[in-house]
Amino acid sequence: MKYTIGLDYGTNSVRALIVNVATGAEVGSAVHVYSHGKDGVILSSDPNLARQHPADYLEGAEITIKAALKAAVKTVRGFKPSQVVGIGVDTTGSTPLPVDQDGVALAMTKKFAKHPAAMAWLWKDHTGVEEAGEITALARKMRPQYLDKCGGIYSSEWFFSKVLHCLRTSPEVFDAATTWVEIADWIPAMLTGTQKPGAYKASVCAAGHKAMYNDDWGGYPDVKFLAKLDPKLAQLRKQLPVKAYDVSEPAGCLTEDWARKTGLTAGIPVAVGAFDCHLGAVGSGIVPGRLVKTIGTSTCDLMVATADRKLADIPGICGIVKGSVLPGCYGLEAGQSAVGDIFNWFVNYIEPYGKMGGHAHLTKEAAKLKPGASGLLALDWNNGNRTVLVDQRLTGLLVGQTLYTTPAEIYRALIEATAFGALTIINRFEAHGVTVKEVVNCGGIAEKNPLVMQIYADILGRPMKVSRSAQTCALGSAVAAAVVAGAHPNVASAQKAMTGLKAVVYSPDPAAHAVYQQVYEQYRELHDAFGTATWKGNLHGVMKQLIAIRNQART
Amino acid sequence: MKYTIGLDYGTNSVRALIVNVATGAEVGSAVHVYSHGKDGVILSSDPNLARQHPADYLEGAEITIKAALKAAVKTVRGFKPSQVVGIGVDTTGSTPLPVDQDGVALAMTKKFAKHPAAMAWLWKDHTGVEEAGEITALARKMRPQYLDKCGGIYSSEWFFSKVLHCLRTSPEVFDAATTWVEIADWIPAMLTGTQKPGAYKASVCAAGHKAMYNDDWGGYPDVKFLAKLDPKLAQLRKQLPVKAYDVSEPAGCLTEDWARKTGLTAGIPVAVGAFDCHLGAVGSGIVPGRLVKTIGTSTCDLMVATADRKLADIPGICGIVKGSVLPGCYGLEAGQSAVGDIFNWFVNYIEPYGKMGGHAHLTKEAAKLKPGASGLLALDWNNGNRTVLVDQRLTGLLVGQTLYTTPAEIYRALIEATAFGALTIINRFEAHGVTVKEVVNCGGIAEKNPLVMQIYADILGRPMKVSRSAQTCALGSAVAAAVVAGAHPNVASAQKAMTGLKAVVYSPDPAAHAVYQQVYEQYRELHDAFGTATWKGNLHGVMKQLIAIRNQART
Repeated sequence: MKYTIGLDYGTNSVRALIVNVATGAEVGSAVHVYSHGKDGVILSSDPNLARQHPADYLEGAEITIKAALKAAVKTVRGFKPSQVVGIGVDTTGSTPLPVDQDGVALAMTKKFAKHPAAMAWLWKDHTGVEEAGEITALARKMRPQYLDKCGGIYSSEWFFSKVLHCLRTSPEVFDAATTWVEIADWIPAMLTGTQKPGAYKASVCAAGHKAMYNDDWGGYPDVKFLAKLDPKLAQLRKQLPVKAYDVSEPAGCLTEDWARKTGLTAGIPVAVGAFDCHLGAVGSGIVPGRLVKTIGTSTCDLMVATADRKLADIPGICGIVKGSVLPGCYGLEAGQSAVGDIFNWFVNYIEPYGKMGGHAHLTKEAAKLKPGASGLLALDWNNGNRTVLVDQRLTGLLVGQTLYTTPAEIYRALIEATAFGALTIINRFEAHGVTVKEVVNCGGIAEKNPLVMQIYADILGRPMKVSRSAQTCALGSAVAAAVVAGAHPNVASAQKAMTGLKAVVYSPDPAAHAVYQQVYEQYRELHDAFGTATWKGNLHGVMKQLIAIRNQART
Repeated sequence: MKYTIGLDYGTNSVRALIVNVATGAEVGSAVHVYSHGKDGVILSSDPNLARQHPADYLEGAEITIKAALKAAVKTVRGFKPSQVVGIGVDTTGSTPLPVDQDGVALAMTKKFAKHPAAMAWLWKDHTGVEEAGEITALARKMRPQYLDKCGGIYSSEWFFSKVLHCLRTSPEVFDAATTWVEIADWIPAMLTGTQKPGAYKASVCAAGHKAMYNDDWGGYPDVKFLAKLDPKLAQLRKQLPVKAYDVSEPAGCLTEDWARKTGLTAGIPVAVGAFDCHLGAVGSGIVPGRLVKTIGTSTCDLMVATADRKLADIPGICGIVKGSVLPGCYGLEAGQSAVGDIFNWFVNYIEPYGKMGGHAHLTKEAAKLKPGASGLLALDWNNGNRTVLVDQRLTGLLVGQTLYTTPAEIYRALIEATAFGALTIINRFEAHGVTVKEVVNCGGIAEKNPLVMQIYADILGRPMKVSRSAQTCALGSAVAAAVVAGAHPNVASAQKAMTGLKAVVYSPDPAAHAVYQQVYEQYRELHDAFGTATWKGNLHGVMKQLIAIRNQART
């Protein structure tokens, strides 16, 4: 029997998962919460700032691989670490970090050990809002093709916004860096000793979706364009890799040092990295027509389309990148900047119901409520809007409060808001010719919260399927590992053997769907009124309509 | 030494206050929370419904008068109940109740003891929303002068909306009632044994502000108008009093029975009743140019204008009624449907910060925040909007939430929202020629919460003065009692002797005011967008502007 390891770097923790390449059986797993910051995230008084310490990634790999191996030994009689034939890595992103001429993260040097700008700029760091606007404006004028492939707006969550913001606000860090590397590249590079700039293999998933990389125009944005933003960015361009690869490509082989530290065999291949949700989609058996939603702190929505078809650009989605999910297919990424994070905010910051609070209690109470009966409607923008507005200068909104509004009603409204956001994304895909034939959900929330899944089914008006694995991202990484290790000839074959769906399917309730369609009309009004510059009208009917729906639902 | 008693019937409790008519010294006081319902209010699954049991009013009078007398005996050496020479009564309103041919409240008869429609329909009961719309529409067509005096819209909080709603939805109660009486009339009538329909004296404050009573058109709305709403309403018209009186008129004399029950002297005069905030304004020394804000669960804003001047009708205010506050002056009423109720909702229903929550903790945390720094903005419409929109089909709204928004930030935003609402009212008064020269606040919140007062000063850009008495409503009732008892020749004289201001004045901070002026622009946008049918535009700038203000405030 052969096994591979999927390493899944999330927002708060890293997971290692050991998977049987023939059956998909998950035989050992371990999770480690990053040591630095609050739940692994370094914050400041600026709510836009979110960083991570790169040392946490390395420490986490060592701890979780060892623990997962130990678990596998307990699960499978006779299991030996030498049966692990490959490693795959998925990470959050865009999460770039500055490195020196040897590929050492600046935050791991003495000089910059505590400098926030020298750390990894986590995907949800929005400090580069102004730079994003600048990049978008320049690209619109000078290189519209760059924008066409990333939904029309370059986001503050992405590579160049962050790098440019560092250049502007912490030049001492920018100047000390030889180059900037996505952690999706840096972690496989560290495992394989290829971290030196020029030596590591870049992920097409990260480069394509977040850094405007495209083989059609010769890779990363050209020097002339970058020079217009800042001559130093044009300098940086020379340090960026020439070519980027999909996950069926090995990044290198595990070093002796890492083999010693973990108990694995030196020389086993490590796949090129990709983003967590992209490999989560692989672990959910993504094929054309299947939308895979990875629902966690944020949501990533992925579709794939065969590369032979003519594909229209879709405004507002985060990217169309060949090879970013499945080799040879276009990967289409969309998503919501916060989903579980919104529920967590309500539980952890607002602490409703006093001691009685928490997700479990709120979910139980929210489940008793009828669609529309609270009269509440929320916008799911506490962390901005990634798709379809691509605007971080948006915030949460709640309307419909009375003097008797309960926390459970608000909690349900927040869930519903994320579902309305999800529906808006599906509508956008379909309006541009990408048909969503089925929806498969994965990630912690899909796994653990049947109420959320039922509300999604009722609001989307479609059955909600759930991926069999509770760790699809790590599983997807293990699938990639199985391909680079030669255990399967290609990703499709590995997916077939290693992935699957749960038996349970959440079916939409027609009555609930009908009510939610009325509420969605009001969501669209608010969405367009607050989110677009072109909407014209007034909102005099919104509160009244919500009251009418509420009164109807309560009788 | 002579004393009078002010009886103050609030939303949750009744208070008796014994006042020295020469000095205003408050020598004895007692409070009793009504026995029925939740904190004295009977609720249902319909959030619009709010009722009270009339037995609570009588029980409360007996308990509090006796207790206040006992307290006075302890405070003043040699105090005797026989030194009490008169009683004044203020109540919430419009809070009408149905009575039989003897003036007995239907809820106090066996048949209707538990029927919600037979109880007192508390001021904040909004079940008559549709009827209010109907009355407004009919008056606009048939009797526009009725609307001109009550701000252009007849509210669901008012007398005929409630009576008509009862007629429509609980005809068995309506048919069993001989007439409907405001508790401002019914309680003095019960104390003086004049409760029989035809025998009691109606309050011009209640009749004028809530039931379209005006001497200029012969009292209550005419039979023809009421018949158009329902022939039974025209029948009811015949049972309503012919004339209504101000508080310098005695309603009658205390009965033997009440004297026995309370220890007071039979035959002492009881003043005609008025609404709590109107007598609160009297107790705050109201004169032309002085806006008195009674800030409690809701807010009542009162101005007076001498009856000799030409006064324009003011759209959106709750009424212009001669004699409703000071005899011989126009009383101008405005208000906010919920203020303290919104803060209470947040503390009691949402229960933020778990065990650490509560007003004291939230106030302490909110006081540490800078104006604009939360990025939050709320609309103070959880209970609808009384002035200037006069629309109960409005609800609360909160915008600007991030993933790090704290309860204290929300709490402060709710306070700010009520201040923005207050500013909107002042602007409306001044836009129609009623100049606000000074603002005097009274009521529990003005008394107890310096943070609220400071935020009001900063948002209104005016000094906030506070009434000396912590019980201005009861004090105002005691002032009225002093006049009907002949202890003072008129209200002005009694006010001079018995009322005053606190030494502390909350002055606006210019820097805070400047920030709040920016936030108020956004408040007005939301106010008009959600609250009026005529606003046209979009709200694309609202979240962005709030973020800009936040970023400015945090640096």
